[in-house]
Amino acid sequence: MESSVVSRKLDQAVGFLREAGIDLWIAQFARESYEQPTPVDTLAVGCSVTWPAAFLVAASGRRTAIVGTGDVANVRAAGVYDEVVGYVQDVAVPLREVMSDVNPTRVAVSYSVADDMADNITHGMFLMLQGILAGTPYFDCLVPAEGILGKLRAYKLPVEVRRIQDAIEMTHQLFGLMPQLLREGVTESELADRLRGEGRARGGAPAWDPRYDPIVNFGPGSGFGHSEPGTVALAPGMLVHIDLGLKVEGYCSDLQRTWYVLRPSESEAPLEVQEAFAAVRVSMDAGFETLRPGIPGWTADRQARDALLRAGYAESEFAFGHQLGQTAHDGGALLGPPWPRYGTRPEMPLGEGMVFAIEQAVPTEAGPIGLEDDVLITAGGAEYLSQPQTALEYVRL
Amino acid sequence: MESSVVSRKLDQAVGFLREAGIDLWIAQFARESYEQPTPVDTLAVGCSVTWPAAFLVAASGRRTAIVGTGDVANVRAAGVYDEVVGYVQDVAVPLREVMSDVNPTRVAVSYSVADDMADNITHGMFLMLQGILAGTPYFDCLVPAEGILGKLRAYKLPVEVRRIQDAIEMTHQLFGLMPQLLREGVTESELADRLRGEGRARGGAPAWDPRYDPIVNFGPGSGFGHSEPGTVALAPGMLVHIDLGLKVEGYCSDLQRTWYVLRPSESEAPLEVQEAFAAVRVSMDAGFETLRPGIPGWTADRQARDALLRAGYAESEFAFGHQLGQTAHDGGALLGPPWPRYGTRPEMPLGEGMVFAIEQAVPTEAGPIGLEDDVLITAGGAEYLSQPQTALEYVRL
Repeated sequence: MESSVVSRKLDQAVGFLREAGIDLWIAQFARESYEQPTPVDTLAVGCSVTWPAAFLVAASGRRTAIVGTGDVANVRAAGVYDEVVGYVQDVAVPLREVMSDVNPTRVAVSYSVADDMADNITHGMFLMLQGILAGTPYFDCLVPAEGILGKLRAYKLPVEVRRIQDAIEMTHQLFGLMPQLLREGVTESELADRLRGEGRARGGAPAWDPRYDPIVNFGPGSGFGHSEPGTVALAPGMLVHIDLGLKVEGYCSDLQRTWYVLRPSESEAPLEVQEAFAAVRVSMDAGFETLRPGIPGWTADRQARDALLRAGYAESEFAFGHQLGQTAHDGGALLGPPWPRYGTRPEMPLGEGMVFAIEQAVPTEAGPIGLEDDVLITAGGAEYLSQPQTALEYVRL
Repeated sequence: MESSVVSRKLDQAVGFLREAGIDLWIAQFARESYEQPTPVDTLAVGCSVTWPAAFLVAASGRRTAIVGTGDVANVRAAGVYDEVVGYVQDVAVPLREVMSDVNPTRVAVSYSVADDMADNITHGMFLMLQGILAGTPYFDCLVPAEGILGKLRAYKLPVEVRRIQDAIEMTHQLFGLMPQLLREGVTESELADRLRGEGRARGGAPAWDPRYDPIVNFGPGSGFGHSEPGTVALAPGMLVHIDLGLKVEGYCSDLQRTWYVLRPSESEAPLEVQEAFAAVRVSMDAGFETLRPGIPGWTADRQARDALLRAGYAESEFAFGHQLGQTAHDGGALLGPPWPRYGTRPEMPLGEGMVFAIEQAVPTEAGPIGLEDDVLITAGGAEYLSQPQTALEYVRL
């Protein structure tokens, strides 16, 4: 992430700090962060470090990085933190000095039980931080920064929405290639390789683990969920389901589309497949229509979930929607059921400027039907950033 | 990392568990681990997961993965954990069940204050784990796994040493290109790009953050430490210092070499430069001669450090050596001074089968002299895996 965007996100963070009554945010306290990167690095740090390093953002707007001398040039070059303090022997000394100088009452640290994307400090580094602050007035001031980090990830700046739109646009381009890529006998993994190559050629990176980005399912025997494309070869009578995300200039898309491969004798898909598509479409629409600022995420999941149940399908094992940004699962408020697996995230309210990927899927005798689109929460509801698939698409081999 | 190597490392880990009297090792308890990867993933897990997932290794040899249903296919495909338990709503239920079944007295968790590479669980996930175990007999059984993880990273299997040697061999090949790459006016960043390209073409990846792998310094005005190659153009009278690491099949090299660019009138480097090279060489030799199983790492650092001081140079700000493996800074026992920055790592004893990168550098009026080589600790001492640079190399533009 270039420093101008990180810098603007830190300006935005200062507002959230003041709202929350937090005097100082230890955005990160980490070491060897190239080997152990976390989502806060590209959001609020701007570079990797080797030796223990603290990145501090005060409610006053002051930004201070305390880093080993070998990392100083690098952190200065990143240009996000105006004040860069180098140390040789012990990070504790300058860290305690800066803490005394800011003299905070509430200090937020980037960890969270509920929100995976806001859980960025290791347990060992948290213990080291406690050790450094032992005996100071700040030892008892540490609180989780999940509220600040959740908002910072969630409330997109216009530049962030534009980048997500760029990633979506490129993903639509790849979907446009599908009629020519779907050939008799092509395997799931061959198609996945081809789509990855076409993405790379356009400057896009995978939005998640490239071993299953894209997920490609041909027919009913293919793996479900986050599984790698396999050796199944394409044949008539199969559904083709693709879940594809691209990262462009640091921001992600996440979309699913479904095609049906007609048998020579067919002019449309079997009734069961058509009904399943319709049920997924109705579920997507029911969830989408619910979206607006202020509602907790579970209400949208409930509408989408119930629509599918009413159509006679088994209950979905997954959340209806997740936030999208620098990562494909951007943490924070979730359009998910109130299951322990999702913690408190389904209770969090939606807000204008959040971006969600909404998705629904059902299995059929011809393979899975899956749809996923990316939406922006607006003042009055939500709008699609992608062009939803409204009808099952047909191909002939 | 392919599963066969991960599987052999887990066999090795079982021995360390028994030695340490640990009944169960929670190798990882993580979520969204593609977005927040840690070094334990390629060492002891074998794939990434989306939902909260626990990877358990018992002293009995039993290996159990407890993962969200959407990750099951993926974890099975990785083939490292024989027992894969899928859950839909709550990881706590199957995790408590497996804990009861194993009924451990001491449970190691992958965190460490001292050893960065053994500090792999987030603070939020540690709190979640404590929450799940609250009210069970296992709540008070959690201890840091740093000893097990430190040994597992440190004691290389023969297959691991061979891969490090492959990475070193490729690095030597790139150094062999230097006489033809060093041309009047080439900039640091141009040379860095060229070396990265030559590495990629041979199937090597950067061993650390590619923004400063390689580090390239032309002359005395260049950035120090972990800094990005800049716009300095090569000219006679400059030292050329390269710090380059490659990752080949998951294992790293880390080497430094130094060249002097002769002025038309010169047949050798200025005396100050020659003396500085000699001092670095003497320091490297003094440290290397000290290496053998059983010594704490600081003793080798001390010998190398004192040799440099005796030659009249300022004290080094860095450790003399660090371990090398799947990462360029592989954690655990460190050949470093007893400074707080390095925690307890300089006290840890060396052992046969460990691999270290040893390094020394001094600034001169013509630029930095820096040397770094990779060595294997043997029963009787240590042997070089790389071919050390014994004399300053000269180039003419």
